[in-house]
Amino acid sequence: MVAAVRVVPSAASRALSLLRTVQYTHPPSCPCHSNPGHHHHHARPQINAYAQRAHQNGRRGFASPLDASQQKEYAFEMAASSIRFGPGVTQEVGMDFANMGAKRVCVVTDSTVRRLTAIQQVEEALSREGIEYKIFDKVRVEPKDSSIKEAIDFAKPYRPDAFLAVGGGSVIDTAKLMNLYTEYPDAEFLDFVNAPLGNGRPIEKKLKPLIAVPTTAGTGSETTGTAIFDLVAKRAKTGIAHRNLKPTLGICDPLNTRTMPSAVKASSGLDVLCHALESWTAIPFNERTPRPTNPIIRPAYQGANPISDIFSLNALRSTVKYLPRAVKDPEDFEAQHEMLLAATLAGIGFGNAGVHLCHGMSYPISGQNPGYQHAGYEVDSPIIPHGVSVAVTSPTVFKFTAPSNPDRHLAAAEAFGVDTTNVKREDAGEVLADALRKFLADLGDQPKGIKDLGFSRDHIEALVEGTIPQARVLVLAPGLAKELEQEKDQLRKLFEESMVH
Amino acid sequence: MVAAVRVVPSAASRALSLLRTVQYTHPPSCPCHSNPGHHHHHARPQINAYAQRAHQNGRRGFASPLDASQQKEYAFEMAASSIRFGPGVTQEVGMDFANMGAKRVCVVTDSTVRRLTAIQQVEEALSREGIEYKIFDKVRVEPKDSSIKEAIDFAKPYRPDAFLAVGGGSVIDTAKLMNLYTEYPDAEFLDFVNAPLGNGRPIEKKLKPLIAVPTTAGTGSETTGTAIFDLVAKRAKTGIAHRNLKPTLGICDPLNTRTMPSAVKASSGLDVLCHALESWTAIPFNERTPRPTNPIIRPAYQGANPISDIFSLNALRSTVKYLPRAVKDPEDFEAQHEMLLAATLAGIGFGNAGVHLCHGMSYPISGQNPGYQHAGYEVDSPIIPHGVSVAVTSPTVFKFTAPSNPDRHLAAAEAFGVDTTNVKREDAGEVLADALRKFLADLGDQPKGIKDLGFSRDHIEALVEGTIPQARVLVLAPGLAKELEQEKDQLRKLFEESMVH
Repeated sequence: MVAAVRVVPSAASRALSLLRTVQYTHPPSCPCHSNPGHHHHHARPQINAYAQRAHQNGRRGFASPLDASQQKEYAFEMAASSIRFGPGVTQEVGMDFANMGAKRVCVVTDSTVRRLTAIQQVEEALSREGIEYKIFDKVRVEPKDSSIKEAIDFAKPYRPDAFLAVGGGSVIDTAKLMNLYTEYPDAEFLDFVNAPLGNGRPIEKKLKPLIAVPTTAGTGSETTGTAIFDLVAKRAKTGIAHRNLKPTLGICDPLNTRTMPSAVKASSGLDVLCHALESWTAIPFNERTPRPTNPIIRPAYQGANPISDIFSLNALRSTVKYLPRAVKDPEDFEAQHEMLLAATLAGIGFGNAGVHLCHGMSYPISGQNPGYQHAGYEVDSPIIPHGVSVAVTSPTVFKFTAPSNPDRHLAAAEAFGVDTTNVKREDAGEVLADALRKFLADLGDQPKGIKDLGFSRDHIEALVEGTIPQARVLVLAPGLAKELEQEKDQLRKLFEESMVH
Repeated sequence: MVAAVRVVPSAASRALSLLRTVQYTHPPSCPCHSNPGHHHHHARPQINAYAQRAHQNGRRGFASPLDASQQKEYAFEMAASSIRFGPGVTQEVGMDFANMGAKRVCVVTDSTVRRLTAIQQVEEALSREGIEYKIFDKVRVEPKDSSIKEAIDFAKPYRPDAFLAVGGGSVIDTAKLMNLYTEYPDAEFLDFVNAPLGNGRPIEKKLKPLIAVPTTAGTGSETTGTAIFDLVAKRAKTGIAHRNLKPTLGICDPLNTRTMPSAVKASSGLDVLCHALESWTAIPFNERTPRPTNPIIRPAYQGANPISDIFSLNALRSTVKYLPRAVKDPEDFEAQHEMLLAATLAGIGFGNAGVHLCHGMSYPISGQNPGYQHAGYEVDSPIIPHGVSVAVTSPTVFKFTAPSNPDRHLAAAEAFGVDTTNVKREDAGEVLADALRKFLADLGDQPKGIKDLGFSRDHIEALVEGTIPQARVLVLAPGLAKELEQEKDQLRKLFEESMVH
């Protein structure tokens, strides 16, 4: 009954053990192959396809079991913050911190949210429980490494035992990084940043509790382990992504998103739309290479998988239904409620599957803005809101990715209400692109391509160069070449076709 | 920018603050009520119904904002263990413990699983990382408080810094309680046990990491904060349920469920079926009373909600499709793979919504077994497997619950492949009951009612008395009376009709 062992494994025993595992994993008498009848009549082809492919991959893997870099992934992981959802639920946050024994909370927000009722609710909730807190309200919308460093410098001397983020994606992302770097006070900023721009170091330590209270229905950052920012020196958007970065709890209170101006509702909602569409159409997790040699380096952006699929497709359907209502009628509380839920569901979906081309191409679009000022955004300087920069390439992108999996692209078109009964599979891309064009046009105030944002053909080379560093998402784009020059050609063409979509 | 506050709230300020919150939550100009047009054309009626009801409840709450016991719930929470899924993924568990810095792991299993490859894989994985461990293999199938106390007594002196459960629901549940009571060494066993049998104390402390490796596709215990056992002195099944009890990570390896005998596959799968159906049909979260005064006492079994719905319905569809295949063909690896996934999805669903009558009535059925020995179970003493005891009342139960929400019951019937186009809503219960009867008959070796288990009319009173203590699940049963004598009458009738379903 008792077996206490202490073994220092040798390289040889590791190798042997791995070999045994792979052998065990794929017994010679393989039911899936010996009984092909099982693969007929699939109501949910994608999920069966996973099981089948996992099986085949393993067999392939058996040929060279020791070289993980050549092996495809065989597992997927689903991790998400706990979520609490309800109108007025912000009032509970003080009790949450009290329950976890937190005594010094660093509240993170921006100057706009600082003036809203959400922060007032939070302050009352903390005070009611006698919890000490300090508010950092200088988060920059679309944060830069410099603004994040400023935030970290605020948090370090305060030595909080928990964090509370109240705001949109920029606020929540900044709070994640304040949490990370106060826990690793001596780390270089680039250590944890995604490769190739940073060193892609995994986060081994458990961070301090972080509660996120979103005030937009968009990023889904309250559920994910991702934080995005501008790395100014490299002139690129990048980020840090690891499961251990995810908040402890997301408090989703539909009362907090009522304050969004209509234009912000639209662009946040388009971000949700693309989270859902990109994670749904990303390469399957078991086509990704390399197979990780340690679970801690299995990326959160792991490709489409059976659990992320459920979230992504639900979020897509909800967004198609409720976003137009939420944008058009500021009093449509139900639509706002459903959009916050959709944003959260999409967050769980893409947080465990990833995004690809729309997001990869959006970063240089936003970053290299020739001077576009989006209607309805009351800011002093030119701005292409994140959701707008993501959605503007979507008709072109999904036309490009459709041949990789026409069934999924048709299912997405169906979510837009398209009757696909008589659509040929080779037309899936065009049909989805049409549905997207119509959806964007009906939503109103959306550019009809990057030309409307002020880009001309002269900008394309810089846009392509700005996309290439987004390796983490590009690797999930179906149909994108692995060879650099080929990949650049494809991106060039995608930007060209996105001039007028 | 800085606001450090330390306020000891008075009862008056709490009340005022709560009043303000409630007022804020429900502004006088209420878009949902003033614009009823928004509630037409609902493709997903249940989700919109939640939003609408949440809103109405709040208004009702405003009349007596200070008496939470009269107020309905306004929020729901979704919490689940992280899940890793893939054939062969058990091999990673040593690295997981190494990554979290665990040095002494208490491995929990039973004598049957001890002989299987899963444990061998786990031992190799731990040894490879040089992690010390001790195996407790005396978990009792359908654990009793005494067997759990024995397990706790094993764990306490070992002082592990992490737990690893390898087995079915009994093993995982036992490991959860070993973790709980080693963290609260001085607690009385009944402290945390669900009311009314125990004191229902919430778990405030963070427990040690627990990784669960299921070897059956059934309980979904790897994702939930629930542990079920027999409280012998009270002659009742009860349990402990709290989010903080949930495992850190569930490692779902379809290779580990291949060893299940066909009869075990069937009964485990029927548990999944009922998890999905019961959580899908449970009362909505925002019909539950009382509204919790602190989020830590918001039950995990909170009623159906928009996120649990997604999991429950997906798990239901998968189970209907794959369980018959998994039971009939032991070589159908794809079906086994899909059933493990369905069990996990259902676990997330019911883990955040709850179960109701099938489970509530199953505990006395199993516990008061007149001598039935289920075919295919190689045990010495009579046994009504959990899944069998749950499913045997299902046709009767869903006929009873259908009037509460005919649309949901029809949607469930559709998942069984029934064309409900021309079915009247008042026939929803009968139609779903028929689908269940057919499903159980086709699966084979299932009792056609509790009469087949050896129960007669003389047993009914004791069965009713054994169901009443299951308050935690009965409270979620739609249509069940709150008044005790009425409730008993209803249960009596349900057991009578379940003699031959």
